[in-house]
Amino acid sequence: MTSRLIYTSDVDATLNDIIGGGNYHHVMVLVDENTRRHVLPLVHCLDSAHVIEMPSGDCNKTLDTLTLVWKRMQQCNATRHSLLVNLGGGVVTDLGGLAAATFKRGIDFVNVPTTILAAVDAAVGGKTGINFQGLKNEIGVFAHAHSVLVSTCFFGTLPIEQVKSGYAEMLKHGMLSGHDQLATLLSNDFSSINHPSLLKLLQESVEVKQRIVDQDPTEHGIRKALNLGHTVGHAFESKAMAGGKPVPHGYAVAWGLVVETVLSHMILGFPSADLYALARFVRGNYGAFHITCDDYDHLISLMRHDKKSRNGEINCTLLASCGDVRIDNTISDSDLKAALDIYRDLMGI
Amino acid sequence: MTSRLIYTSDVDATLNDIIGGGNYHHVMVLVDENTRRHVLPLVHCLDSAHVIEMPSGDCNKTLDTLTLVWKRMQQCNATRHSLLVNLGGGVVTDLGGLAAATFKRGIDFVNVPTTILAAVDAAVGGKTGINFQGLKNEIGVFAHAHSVLVSTCFFGTLPIEQVKSGYAEMLKHGMLSGHDQLATLLSNDFSSINHPSLLKLLQESVEVKQRIVDQDPTEHGIRKALNLGHTVGHAFESKAMAGGKPVPHGYAVAWGLVVETVLSHMILGFPSADLYALARFVRGNYGAFHITCDDYDHLISLMRHDKKSRNGEINCTLLASCGDVRIDNTISDSDLKAALDIYRDLMGI
Repeated sequence: MTSRLIYTSDVDATLNDIIGGGNYHHVMVLVDENTRRHVLPLVHCLDSAHVIEMPSGDCNKTLDTLTLVWKRMQQCNATRHSLLVNLGGGVVTDLGGLAAATFKRGIDFVNVPTTILAAVDAAVGGKTGINFQGLKNEIGVFAHAHSVLVSTCFFGTLPIEQVKSGYAEMLKHGMLSGHDQLATLLSNDFSSINHPSLLKLLQESVEVKQRIVDQDPTEHGIRKALNLGHTVGHAFESKAMAGGKPVPHGYAVAWGLVVETVLSHMILGFPSADLYALARFVRGNYGAFHITCDDYDHLISLMRHDKKSRNGEINCTLLASCGDVRIDNTISDSDLKAALDIYRDLMGI
Repeated sequence: MTSRLIYTSDVDATLNDIIGGGNYHHVMVLVDENTRRHVLPLVHCLDSAHVIEMPSGDCNKTLDTLTLVWKRMQQCNATRHSLLVNLGGGVVTDLGGLAAATFKRGIDFVNVPTTILAAVDAAVGGKTGINFQGLKNEIGVFAHAHSVLVSTCFFGTLPIEQVKSGYAEMLKHGMLSGHDQLATLLSNDFSSINHPSLLKLLQESVEVKQRIVDQDPTEHGIRKALNLGHTVGHAFESKAMAGGKPVPHGYAVAWGLVVETVLSHMILGFPSADLYALARFVRGNYGAFHITCDDYDHLISLMRHDKKSRNGEINCTLLASCGDVRIDNTISDSDLKAALDIYRDLMGI
């Protein structure tokens, strides 16, 4: 079972059809304070829906928030035949998906991602989750949305930081596709964005992910390709969160991509020209995540606790070249430390 | 996907094979204080497993306990490739199944039910869950155990109350099967139990359930047959829990079966002779759940909040006769009150 992925220029009409076709008695919509203010008023078919508001931000992707959402669903007298619409970024779709999948052992939900990142990263593949005890997405299930509505409607108003954050996942998909796709993405100039062409790239990017996920819904094989950049990226993100200075997920992925491409070069001979081009682009557009060699042991410990680790070993997806994916590489501490040294050189820190 | 259902006289050897065959690095076992003391020492292949203990009883089938189990799994450094063995009654298998299904988006688990009730009711069908805000199994997922080990090993030491509790689910399966199956079950004398024949009945009972579940894994159709007795039974159970005097699940089911068989008689002409025989057996072996007409509105409200309800209507599975199942009957308040009146007459209260 997979979600229906719908590209639409009219979310309101499309969602209205879904709600009518499903014969749902209760319709609930999960928003955060931002999407409640800026997005919900644009979706008129939800005018009479029960609105459940959660606080925005990854720091609120917690068991406490999940518990709050469960309680509000109960207060709405939701039944197994209710529908939850998740209207927001990745935090809303991840947490809302888990809330729906676990409420009365599962009710239908529709994801309406309002950010590029959510559309590319969170809306495909059925991953839901919350952070727990400082570890990202530690609690969750695989559960497919009834439908995912990808639209341009809400992207025009995004701040540039969120565009860049989503773009990092697109970089990853480009690297998984091939050299030319990466080169096109690296030619982008964030100071003069062309929205129609960005959206075309976005759709291509979602389709790369969809193809991989369809081959491997439970992530035991090739789907691990999608972890590229994320073993190191999640460790950066966890470290930043623990230090009280969270960074956007996509920024952490961009930095993680650089480290894991260094590893790819060291271990599999990934072409150095592509590595340097990637590192230049990331440094120029995302800056650097500042670490010293004193941080290495903490980062290694975080990677050992990553869901992708096995027997406490650090597991990375690497590339022999763009498009040539090798999953399940075990990384030694010494290789990782060498790669972090090179990352710091490339980033000028 | 369904669980492997294994009948075995040697849990230790069978479990040892599963653990060896799965190449798991970490093995954890979830117990309560009773199964830790009485059952765990009998299963030597778990001698080196990480032991996670939860407090026994339905009142501990809570989010707090689930959170505790998640934390302990983290402390064990569990990965996606760890195994959780749930060694206990239905509370342990339901909560442990949910903990495993949601930890890092799902790790393998094996259910080793130690009570008749858990073997019949909880070990087949992939239902996991916890109680939440006073509602039973409000939070959960459908998740199949890797294997379910049904054995006679641990049943010989059960107190008679637990035997009767499990037997109520067997009565339900008998009623779903046919008149003769019910008659055989009603001829049982709890004062002189024959264990080998009880176990044969148990296996038949599990197989009735397995056949129904296999036809309808997500409970949208015929699987609702298994809800027989449970709409009213859960309301009795919730009422008892709220009043601080919890009753065994199977006792609530036995009383619920009587009420729903009264409804079956009123609405579908279920034979009165079978109704009276059932009521006599339940009254004689389980006593009665005491209610007055002042309790009716509270019970009706609980049934409206049941997972099986739709649009706030009370939904019951009924029988035109033993083996002739009719799902999705909407019950009016007046019919329900009349049935509760008759239940009180039959039970002598």
